[in-house]
Amino acid sequence: MIILGIDPGLAITGYAIMKKEKQKTEVLDYGAVCFQSKSSLESRIGTFYATFREKIITAQVTNIALETPFLGKNPQNFLKLGYLRGIVYLLADQHGIGIEEFAPRTIKLALTGSGSAQKEQVARVITRLFKGIQTPKSYDVTDALAVTLCGIWKSPLIK
Amino acid sequence: MIILGIDPGLAITGYAIMKKEKQKTEVLDYGAVCFQSKSSLESRIGTFYATFREKIITAQVTNIALETPFLGKNPQNFLKLGYLRGIVYLLADQHGIGIEEFAPRTIKLALTGSGSAQKEQVARVITRLFKGIQTPKSYDVTDALAVTLCGIWKSPLIK
Repeated sequence: MIILGIDPGLAITGYAIMKKEKQKTEVLDYGAVCFQSKSSLESRIGTFYATFREKIITAQVTNIALETPFLGKNPQNFLKLGYLRGIVYLLADQHGIGIEEFAPRTIKLALTGSGSAQKEQVARVITRLFKGIQTPKSYDVTDALAVTLCGIWKSPLIK
Repeated sequence: MIILGIDPGLAITGYAIMKKEKQKTEVLDYGAVCFQSKSSLESRIGTFYATFREKIITAQVTNIALETPFLGKNPQNFLKLGYLRGIVYLLADQHGIGIEEFAPRTIKLALTGSGSAQKEQVARVITRLFKGIQTPKSYDVTDALAVTLCGIWKSPLIK
Protein backbone atom coordinates (compact mmCIF):
# COMPACT_ATOMS: atom_id res chain seq x y z
CA MET A 1 0.00 0.00 0.00
CA ILE A 2 1.51 3.28 -1.16
CA ILE A 3 -0.34 6.47 -0.29
CA LEU A 4 0.11 9.87 -1.89
CA GLY A 5 -1.18 12.71 0.28
CA ILE A 6 -1.62 16.14 -1.27
CA ASP A 7 -2.32 19.56 0.23
CA PRO A 8 -3.19 21.44 -2.97
CA GLY A 9 -2.50 25.14 -3.33
CA LEU A 10 -1.99 27.39 -6.35
CA ALA A 11 1.07 29.02 -4.75
CA ILE A 12 2.54 25.98 -2.92
CA THR A 13 1.30 22.39 -3.03
CA GLY A 14 2.61 20.09 -0.32
CA TYR A 15 2.80 16.35 -0.89
CA ALA A 16 4.04 13.16 0.74
CA ILE A 17 4.28 9.54 -0.33
CA MET A 18 4.30 6.79 2.30
CA LYS A 19 4.55 3.04 2.05
CA LYS A 20 2.93 0.73 4.59
CA GLU A 21 4.24 -2.80 4.80
CA LYS A 22 3.24 -4.97 7.74
CA GLN A 23 3.80 -2.74 10.80
CA LYS A 24 6.28 -0.40 9.15
CA THR A 25 5.45 2.97 7.62
CA GLU A 26 8.15 4.45 5.43
CA VAL A 27 8.25 7.97 3.94
CA LEU A 28 9.27 7.53 0.29
CA ASP A 29 9.06 11.15 -0.77
CA TYR A 30 7.80 14.50 0.51
CA GLY A 31 8.13 18.13 -0.41
CA ALA A 32 6.47 21.08 -2.06
CA VAL A 33 5.67 22.07 -5.62
CA CYS A 34 6.10 25.85 -5.79
CA PHE A 35 4.50 27.75 -8.64
CA GLN A 36 6.04 30.89 -10.04
CA SER A 37 3.93 33.91 -9.25
CA LYS A 38 4.11 35.00 -12.89
CA SER A 39 2.84 31.74 -14.36
CA SER A 40 -0.72 31.48 -15.68
CA LEU A 41 -3.46 29.40 -14.08
CA GLU A 42 -3.39 27.00 -17.08
CA SER A 43 0.34 26.47 -16.78
CA ARG A 44 0.17 25.86 -13.00
CA ILE A 45 -2.55 23.26 -13.56
CA GLY A 46 -0.55 21.66 -16.37
CA THR A 47 2.54 21.48 -14.11
CA PHE A 48 0.47 20.07 -11.23
CA TYR A 49 -0.94 17.32 -13.50
CA ALA A 50 2.45 16.40 -15.01
CA THR A 51 4.24 16.41 -11.62
CA PHE A 52 1.78 14.14 -9.83
CA ARG A 53 1.24 11.89 -12.86
CA GLU A 54 4.98 11.21 -12.82
CA LYS A 55 5.07 10.66 -9.03
CA ILE A 56 2.10 8.25 -9.18
CA ILE A 57 3.78 6.19 -11.88
CA THR A 58 7.27 6.23 -10.33
CA ALA A 59 6.20 5.38 -6.77
CA GLN A 60 3.40 3.02 -7.93
CA VAL A 61 0.87 4.85 -5.76
CA THR A 62 -2.17 2.76 -4.77
CA ASN A 63 -4.20 5.32 -2.80
CA ILE A 64 -4.61 9.08 -2.54
CA ALA A 65 -5.46 11.06 0.61
CA LEU A 66 -6.82 14.60 0.39
CA GLU A 67 -7.93 17.15 2.95
CA THR A 68 -11.51 18.38 2.42
CA PRO A 69 -11.33 22.17 2.22
CA PHE A 70 -13.90 24.48 3.70
CA LEU A 71 -15.08 27.77 2.31
CA GLY A 72 -12.89 30.64 3.49
CA LYS A 73 -13.25 34.36 2.98
CA ASN A 74 -12.74 34.32 -0.76
CA PRO A 75 -15.13 32.09 -2.75
CA GLN A 76 -13.11 32.49 -5.97
CA ASN A 77 -9.96 31.18 -4.23
CA PHE A 78 -12.02 28.31 -2.86
CA LEU A 79 -13.27 27.55 -6.39
CA LYS A 80 -9.70 27.56 -7.72
CA LEU A 81 -8.67 25.05 -5.04
CA GLY A 82 -11.29 22.88 -6.72
CA TYR A 83 -9.36 23.16 -10.01
CA LEU A 84 -6.38 21.32 -8.48
CA ARG A 85 -8.60 18.81 -6.70
CA GLY A 86 -10.29 18.04 -10.03
CA ILE A 87 -6.86 17.15 -11.42
CA VAL A 88 -6.26 14.79 -8.48
CA TYR A 89 -9.58 13.06 -9.22
CA LEU A 90 -8.67 12.81 -12.92
CA LEU A 91 -5.33 11.17 -12.03
CA ALA A 92 -7.15 8.76 -9.70
CA ASP A 93 -9.48 7.78 -12.54
CA GLN A 94 -6.67 7.46 -15.09
CA HIS A 95 -4.55 5.25 -12.81
CA GLY A 96 -7.32 3.29 -11.08
CA ILE A 97 -6.48 4.73 -7.64
CA GLY A 98 -8.94 5.21 -4.78
CA ILE A 99 -9.29 8.62 -3.11
CA GLU A 100 -10.04 9.16 0.54
CA GLU A 101 -10.93 12.60 1.88
CA PHE A 102 -10.37 13.77 5.43
CA ALA A 103 -11.88 16.80 7.16
CA PRO A 104 -9.27 19.16 8.70
CA ARG A 105 -10.72 18.44 12.17
CA THR A 106 -10.35 14.69 11.68
CA ILE A 107 -6.71 15.06 10.69
CA LYS A 108 -5.85 17.31 13.63
CA LEU A 109 -7.68 15.02 16.04
CA ALA A 110 -5.88 11.92 14.71
CA LEU A 111 -2.46 13.57 14.89
CA THR A 112 -2.60 15.67 18.04
CA GLY A 113 -5.62 14.45 19.99
CA SER A 114 -7.34 17.82 19.45
CA GLY A 115 -9.58 18.74 16.52
CA SER A 116 -8.76 22.41 16.98
CA ALA A 117 -4.95 22.07 17.07
CA GLN A 118 -2.78 24.65 15.31
CA LYS A 119 -0.73 23.83 12.21
CA GLU A 120 2.44 24.24 14.29
CA GLN A 121 1.28 21.53 16.69
CA VAL A 122 0.56 19.16 13.77
CA ALA A 123 4.04 19.93 12.42
CA ARG A 124 5.66 19.08 15.79
CA VAL A 125 3.92 15.70 15.92
CA ILE A 126 4.96 14.94 12.33
CA THR A 127 8.64 15.70 12.92
CA ARG A 128 8.54 13.64 16.12
CA LEU A 129 6.98 10.64 14.35
CA PHE A 130 9.38 10.72 11.41
CA LYS A 131 12.81 11.38 12.88
CA GLY A 132 14.51 10.97 9.53
CA ILE A 133 12.83 13.87 7.80
CA GLN A 134 14.06 17.43 7.86
CA THR A 135 11.68 19.91 9.44
CA PRO A 136 9.81 21.23 6.41
CA LYS A 137 9.94 24.94 5.84
CA SER A 138 6.27 25.15 5.06
CA TYR A 139 3.12 23.95 6.79
CA ASP A 140 1.92 22.84 3.36
CA VAL A 141 4.42 19.98 3.62
CA THR A 142 3.60 19.00 7.22
CA ASP A 143 -0.11 19.18 6.36
CA ALA A 144 0.51 16.84 3.41
CA LEU A 145 2.47 14.44 5.66
CA ALA A 146 -0.41 14.56 8.16
CA VAL A 147 -3.13 13.74 5.62
CA THR A 148 -0.98 10.94 4.17
CA LEU A 149 -0.61 9.44 7.62
CA CYS A 150 -4.39 9.59 8.08
CA GLY A 151 -4.69 7.63 4.84
CA ILE A 152 -2.29 5.03 6.23
CA TRP A 153 -4.12 4.78 9.57
CA LYS A 154 -7.56 4.70 7.96
CA SER A 155 -6.71 1.80 5.67
CA PRO A 156 -8.75 -1.32 6.36
CA LEU A 157 -5.51 -3.30 5.90
CA ILE A 158 -4.03 -1.70 9.00
CA LYS A 159 -5.08 -2.40 12.57
CA MET B 1 -11.09 30.71 -35.03
CA ILE B 2 -12.98 27.79 -33.49
CA ILE B 3 -14.46 28.31 -30.03
CA LEU B 4 -15.56 25.64 -27.59
CA GLY B 5 -17.99 26.94 -24.97
CA ILE B 6 -18.70 24.79 -21.93
CA ASP B 7 -21.30 25.05 -19.18
CA PRO B 8 -19.82 22.50 -16.75
CA GLY B 9 -22.03 20.48 -14.44
CA LEU B 10 -21.56 17.14 -12.69
CA ALA B 11 -25.04 15.99 -13.74
CA ILE B 12 -25.24 17.61 -17.19
CA THR B 13 -22.53 19.55 -19.01
CA GLY B 14 -23.65 21.65 -21.97
CA TYR B 15 -21.24 22.48 -24.76
CA ALA B 16 -21.09 24.14 -28.16
CA ILE B 17 -18.43 24.54 -30.83
CA MET B 18 -18.62 27.49 -33.24
CA LYS B 19 -16.44 28.53 -36.13
CA LYS B 20 -16.02 32.16 -37.14
CA GLU B 21 -14.78 32.88 -40.64
CA LYS B 22 -15.01 36.40 -41.98
CA GLN B 23 -18.56 37.52 -41.15
CA LYS B 24 -20.03 34.04 -40.85
CA THR B 25 -20.50 32.14 -37.58
CA GLU B 26 -21.24 28.46 -37.98
CA VAL B 27 -22.28 26.02 -35.24
CA LEU B 28 -20.14 22.90 -35.71
CA ASP B 29 -21.40 20.91 -32.74
CA TYR B 30 -23.53 21.36 -29.63
CA GLY B 31 -25.16 19.17 -27.05
CA ALA B 32 -24.93 17.80 -23.55
CA VAL B 33 -22.77 15.27 -21.77
CA CYS B 34 -25.03 13.51 -19.26
CA PHE B 35 -23.44 11.63 -16.38
CA GLN B 36 -25.06 8.56 -14.89
CA SER B 37 -26.28 9.24 -11.37
CA LYS B 38 -24.58 6.04 -10.16
CA SER B 39 -21.12 6.91 -11.49
CA SER B 40 -18.36 8.06 -9.15
CA LEU B 41 -16.89 11.54 -9.11
CA GLU B 42 -13.57 10.17 -10.47
CA SER B 43 -15.31 8.48 -13.37
CA ARG B 44 -17.36 11.59 -14.25
CA ILE B 45 -14.18 13.65 -14.28
CA GLY B 46 -12.41 11.02 -16.39
CA THR B 47 -15.30 11.02 -18.89
CA PHE B 48 -15.37 14.83 -18.96
CA TYR B 49 -11.64 14.96 -19.75
CA ALA B 50 -11.76 12.26 -22.43
CA THR B 51 -14.87 13.74 -24.09
CA PHE B 52 -13.55 17.28 -24.40
CA ARG B 53 -10.02 16.18 -25.27
CA GLU B 54 -11.49 14.33 -28.25
CA LYS B 55 -13.72 17.28 -29.25
CA ILE B 56 -10.79 19.74 -29.03
CA ILE B 57 -8.66 17.56 -31.29
CA THR B 58 -11.42 16.69 -33.79
CA ALA B 59 -12.76 20.22 -34.22
CA GLN B 60 -9.29 21.84 -33.95
CA VAL B 61 -10.52 24.20 -31.23
CA THR B 62 -8.48 27.41 -30.91
CA ASN B 63 -10.27 29.08 -27.95
CA ILE B 64 -12.38 28.13 -24.96
CA ALA B 65 -15.16 30.22 -23.41
CA LEU B 66 -16.38 29.54 -19.86
CA GLU B 67 -18.97 31.14 -17.62
CA THR B 68 -17.58 32.32 -14.26
CA PRO B 69 -19.68 30.69 -11.56
CA PHE B 70 -20.75 32.39 -8.38
CA LEU B 71 -21.12 30.82 -4.99
CA GLY B 72 -24.62 29.40 -4.50
CA LYS B 73 -26.22 27.88 -1.43
CA ASN B 74 -23.95 24.85 -1.28
CA PRO B 75 -20.18 25.56 -1.03
CA GLN B 76 -19.28 21.88 -1.61
CA ASN B 77 -21.22 21.85 -4.91
CA PHE B 78 -19.49 25.08 -5.86
CA LEU B 79 -16.11 23.47 -5.08
CA LYS B 80 -16.99 20.45 -7.25
CA LEU B 81 -17.83 22.75 -10.17
CA GLY B 82 -14.22 23.82 -9.77
CA TYR B 83 -13.13 20.20 -10.38
CA LEU B 84 -14.55 20.29 -13.91
CA ARG B 85 -13.21 23.79 -14.54
CA GLY B 86 -9.76 22.58 -13.53
CA ILE B 87 -10.00 19.91 -16.24
CA VAL B 88 -10.89 22.60 -18.79
CA TYR B 89 -7.80 24.59 -17.76
CA LEU B 90 -5.66 21.45 -18.03
CA LEU B 91 -6.94 20.78 -21.56
CA ALA B 92 -6.23 24.43 -22.47
CA ASP B 93 -2.66 24.02 -21.25
CA GLN B 94 -2.14 20.66 -22.98
CA HIS B 95 -3.43 21.94 -26.33
CA GLY B 96 -2.11 25.52 -26.19
CA ILE B 97 -5.61 27.03 -26.19
CA GLY B 98 -6.58 30.38 -24.62
CA ILE B 99 -9.45 30.54 -22.12
CA GLU B 100 -11.80 33.47 -21.76
CA GLU B 101 -14.21 33.69 -18.83
CA PHE B 102 -17.49 35.60 -18.86
CA ALA B 103 -19.63 36.60 -15.88
CA PRO B 104 -23.26 35.41 -16.10
CA ARG B 105 -24.44 39.03 -16.19
CA THR B 106 -22.14 39.85 -19.11
CA ILE B 107 -23.48 36.90 -21.10
CA LYS B 108 -27.12 37.77 -20.45
CA LEU B 109 -26.51 41.40 -21.27
CA ALA B 110 -24.76 40.55 -24.54
CA LEU B 111 -27.47 38.13 -25.63
CA THR B 112 -30.70 39.77 -24.44
CA GLY B 113 -29.82 43.37 -23.63
CA SER B 114 -30.54 42.73 -19.94
CA GLY B 115 -28.05 41.48 -17.34
CA SER B 116 -30.86 40.02 -15.26
CA ALA B 117 -32.56 38.05 -18.05
CA GLN B 118 -33.95 34.58 -17.33
CA LYS B 119 -32.42 31.43 -18.84
CA GLU B 120 -35.57 31.01 -20.92
CA GLN B 121 -35.03 34.43 -22.50
CA VAL B 122 -31.41 33.55 -23.35
CA ALA B 123 -32.66 30.28 -24.88
CA ARG B 124 -35.18 32.17 -27.07
CA VAL B 125 -32.49 34.48 -28.42
CA ILE B 126 -30.19 31.53 -29.15
CA THR B 127 -32.82 29.59 -31.11
CA ARG B 128 -33.72 32.77 -33.02
CA LEU B 129 -30.06 33.44 -33.95
CA PHE B 130 -29.34 29.88 -35.04
CA LYS B 131 -32.36 28.80 -37.05
CA GLY B 132 -30.76 25.48 -37.99
CA ILE B 133 -30.44 24.13 -34.49
CA GLN B 134 -33.14 22.18 -32.71
CA THR B 135 -34.43 23.77 -29.53
CA PRO B 136 -32.27 22.10 -26.88
CA LYS B 137 -34.10 20.24 -24.14
CA SER B 138 -31.86 21.68 -21.45
CA TYR B 139 -30.79 25.20 -20.50
CA ASP B 140 -27.29 23.74 -20.01
CA VAL B 141 -27.06 23.56 -23.80
CA THR B 142 -28.47 27.04 -24.51
CA ASP B 143 -26.20 28.44 -21.79
CA ALA B 144 -23.22 26.78 -23.50
CA LEU B 145 -24.29 28.19 -26.89
CA ALA B 146 -24.61 31.63 -25.26
CA VAL B 147 -21.13 31.61 -23.69
CA THR B 148 -19.62 30.34 -26.97
CA LEU B 149 -21.25 33.21 -28.82
CA CYS B 150 -19.78 35.66 -26.27
CA GLY B 151 -16.38 34.15 -27.03
CA ILE B 152 -16.99 34.77 -30.74
CA TRP B 153 -18.16 38.36 -30.20
CA LYS B 154 -15.37 39.16 -27.76
CA SER B 155 -12.63 38.08 -30.13
CA PRO B 156 -10.34 40.88 -31.21
CA LEU B 157 -10.52 39.44 -34.74
CA ILE B 158 -14.21 40.27 -34.97
CA LYS B 159 -15.67 43.73 -35.35
